[in-house]
Amino acid sequence: MKSLVAVTPETFRKERNIDARVLHEVTEIDLKGRRVHVRKLDAAKEWWESFDQLLIATGALPIRPDVPGVDAQGIYGVNTLQSGIEVRQVVDQQAPKRAVIIGGGYIGLEMAEALVRRGLEVSLVERAPQVMVTLDPDMGALVSEALIAVGVALYREESLQGFEVGKGRVQAVITDKRTLPADMVILGMGVRPNATLAKESDIELGEKGAIAVNERQQTNVAGVWAAGDCAQSFHLVSRKPFYVALATVANKQGHVAGVNIGGGSAIFPGVVGTAVSKICDVEVARTGLQERELQQLGWEYVSGKIESSTRVGYYPGAGRITVKALAEKKSGRLLGGQIVGQEGAAKRIDILATALHAGFTVQEMANLDLSYAPPYSPVADPVLVAVRKVAQSI
Amino acid sequence: MKSLVAVTPETFRKERNIDARVLHEVTEIDLKGRRVHVRKLDAAKEWWESFDQLLIATGALPIRPDVPGVDAQGIYGVNTLQSGIEVRQVVDQQAPKRAVIIGGGYIGLEMAEALVRRGLEVSLVERAPQVMVTLDPDMGALVSEALIAVGVALYREESLQGFEVGKGRVQAVITDKRTLPADMVILGMGVRPNATLAKESDIELGEKGAIAVNERQQTNVAGVWAAGDCAQSFHLVSRKPFYVALATVANKQGHVAGVNIGGGSAIFPGVVGTAVSKICDVEVARTGLQERELQQLGWEYVSGKIESSTRVGYYPGAGRITVKALAEKKSGRLLGGQIVGQEGAAKRIDILATALHAGFTVQEMANLDLSYAPPYSPVADPVLVAVRKVAQSI
Repeated sequence: MKSLVAVTPETFRKERNIDARVLHEVTEIDLKGRRVHVRKLDAAKEWWESFDQLLIATGALPIRPDVPGVDAQGIYGVNTLQSGIEVRQVVDQQAPKRAVIIGGGYIGLEMAEALVRRGLEVSLVERAPQVMVTLDPDMGALVSEALIAVGVALYREESLQGFEVGKGRVQAVITDKRTLPADMVILGMGVRPNATLAKESDIELGEKGAIAVNERQQTNVAGVWAAGDCAQSFHLVSRKPFYVALATVANKQGHVAGVNIGGGSAIFPGVVGTAVSKICDVEVARTGLQERELQQLGWEYVSGKIESSTRVGYYPGAGRITVKALAEKKSGRLLGGQIVGQEGAAKRIDILATALHAGFTVQEMANLDLSYAPPYSPVADPVLVAVRKVAQSI
Repeated sequence: MKSLVAVTPETFRKERNIDARVLHEVTEIDLKGRRVHVRKLDAAKEWWESFDQLLIATGALPIRPDVPGVDAQGIYGVNTLQSGIEVRQVVDQQAPKRAVIIGGGYIGLEMAEALVRRGLEVSLVERAPQVMVTLDPDMGALVSEALIAVGVALYREESLQGFEVGKGRVQAVITDKRTLPADMVILGMGVRPNATLAKESDIELGEKGAIAVNERQQTNVAGVWAAGDCAQSFHLVSRKPFYVALATVANKQGHVAGVNIGGGSAIFPGVVGTAVSKICDVEVARTGLQERELQQLGWEYVSGKIESSTRVGYYPGAGRITVKALAEKKSGRLLGGQIVGQEGAAKRIDILATALHAGFTVQEMANLDLSYAPPYSPVADPVLVAVRKVAQSI
C-alpha cells in the first residue's frame, strides 16, 4: 500500500519544510481570532493554533443514505485509503461470496470490476434507468451491457430502502423491489463537499454546498482559501459555478492556491467536465455538458453518434469505439462528448476537452490534423467522424 | 491482402456509380482541348478522353537514388500495395537472411520492425546523425536506442554510394564507410510528389514540386483540381506552403476537392504537421514545427522536455513516456511537440495538435481539463507537465 502514498509526513517535514500533522482534526475556525481549534486524535489533547493564511482542503465525504441498518458492519464507503485497505482485507481474509454495490457511478463500477475479478458474485443497485449518469442514457446503456457481460447482476430503477442486519453485520440489501443477500456492501452513492467547518464559521458556500471561491481560490474571507473536493469550480462551457470532486481539479486548485498564498499570482479558470474510467475491458470517458445538463440550461443542441474502430480494422487488437458529440444548434459550438469503447478509446476524450477549452465549433474541428497510423486509429479518427456527423446536421 | 483494399473498382461502379478504371495511365493533359490522353496498360490501346472538371490525384513516388546498381532485383520501394505483397512473398518463399534498409523515416523504420519480427538480420543506413529526422535530435536518439535494442544494426551518418550486383540481383549495399551484404534492400528515402503530368501541361507547381492549390484544392487552371500526395498543403503554424505525404491529409484534401467539384463549397485550411508511428514497442509522434524548422524560420523559441509515465506508476502496464514541447519565446504560443514512449504514449499528440489549431499559449494550456484515471495517466498528464515546464521558462 506504500506505493499509493505519494508523500509521507516525514518527507513533507524533512524535504519540504512542511509540518504535516496527520491524526489532527480541526474542529472550529475562529475567523476573528485568526486561529483554528485542533484536536489530536491519538491523544487527549486540544488547543488553538493561530494562522496568517488559512487553506481549507477538507475534501469530500461519501454520501451515506439515511436508511435502517446503514451503520452495520460490512458496509464500506471506499473514500479513503484506509477504507480501501479494509475492503481488501475483508476479501482476502473472510472470503465473502456476495457483494452488493449501491450506486453505478465511478466508485461503484470500479469496485464492481475489482470484486468480480476477485471471484465474488456482484450485484449492483442503481436508482436511475442506467449506470454512469454522467453519460447520456444511450451511452450509459453501453456500460450497463458491459457490466452484465462480465457477470454483474444489474438492478436498475431500484432504490435502496435499508439493510438487513444480524449480530451487527449486514446480511442483505433491501430495495423497493427485492432483497439481495450480501456478505459485504459498497456504497457508491457519490460524495458531497466536506464544508461543515467553513459553513459554521460563516465562510460562504456555493454550488452543491461547496466552499465558494474565486479564480484565485480565495473564499469571501480575506486570507482564507479553499481548494480540492471541498471547493467549488467554474464550468467553462456552461459559464456557471460547478461542483466536481476529481483529483485533476483538486490538484490544479491546490497548486493555484499555493502559488497565491505564497505571494504569487495564479488563476484556475475552471473545468470543462472531463472524466474517465475503466470497467473491466470497457473504457468510458466524458467531457463538457451532457444532454440532461443542456436541457436544464434550456440550450438547443444537436448530437451525433458514430461507431468505429480504435485501430484500423485489419490491425491486430482493433476494438470497438462509440463516440457521441454534442453541439449548439445555431452556432455549431462543441458542447460535449462521450466515448465508450475498448482499449485505446478513452484517452481520445482529451481531444474533445481541448477543443472545448478552445471554444471550437464542430465545423472548425472537421479538419483537425489528428494523428493516424494503423496501430492507433482509422485514417479519420473516430472523434473526427463524430464531430463531422454533428456538423452535417447543422 | 483483400482487407487492405478499402474499395474495389467493382464496388465503385456498382454502388457509387463511379467508373473507376485501374490499369489505365494518363500520359498527357491537353488543357486547351479539355481532354487527357489515356493508355490502357494491359492492352495496346490509346485514346483521348474529354473532361469538364479534372482532378489530379497522382500521389507520390518513392525517391530512388541515382547510384550504380539501383535497378537490380531485390531492391524494393514499398510504396504500393503490390510492392508490399512482393516483399512479403520474397520473405515467405526465398527466406532471405540479411536485409538492409536505406533511410530511417517512417517506411524504413516500420519495415525494420516487420523484418526483425520475421527473423531477418536487419541493418539500417541513415545519412543523418539520427533516425526519424522529423523529430529533434534528442527525441530521435530515443528511437535510435529502441531500434538498437530490438537488434537492428544502425549505421548513422553514412551515405549510400551504390549496390553490388550479381546475376542482376543485389548482393550488398555500399556506403561511404563499409559494404553491407544484403539479400534484400528496402528503399525508405522518402517520397516526392508525382506531378510530372501537371508540370508538362503548365499547371503551376509549388512547395517541393507539389501541385500548387488554394484552400479549395483548385490549381491555377479553372476546372482543374489536385488533392493528395501530389498536391501542396498549407502549414497552419508557420503560415507557409508545406508539402506532406500522409493519408490523413490526402483523405481530407480529396473530400474537399470532391465537394467543390460537385458544386459545393468546402475548404481545407491546412495542417499542423501531425504524424505518428510505431517501431516495435516504441510509439513515436510529432506535431507542429521542430527545432530545425524554427531555426530556418528564424523564430525564437523555448523548449521543455519531461519524462513521465503512461499510467500512474503503481498501475500495471505503466510505461515510460518522454514529451517535448516547443513555444514561441516572447508570447508562449505553442509551436510544436514530440512524444516517444511505450504503449499509450503516441495518441496524446492529438492534444498538442488540437492546441496548435487553437493557437494556444503554453500558459493557457497549463490548466487544460484533461482526463485522469490510474489506467490512463498520472494525475497530471505528461503533456500538461511538459507544457507547464515550457511555461515556467518564459
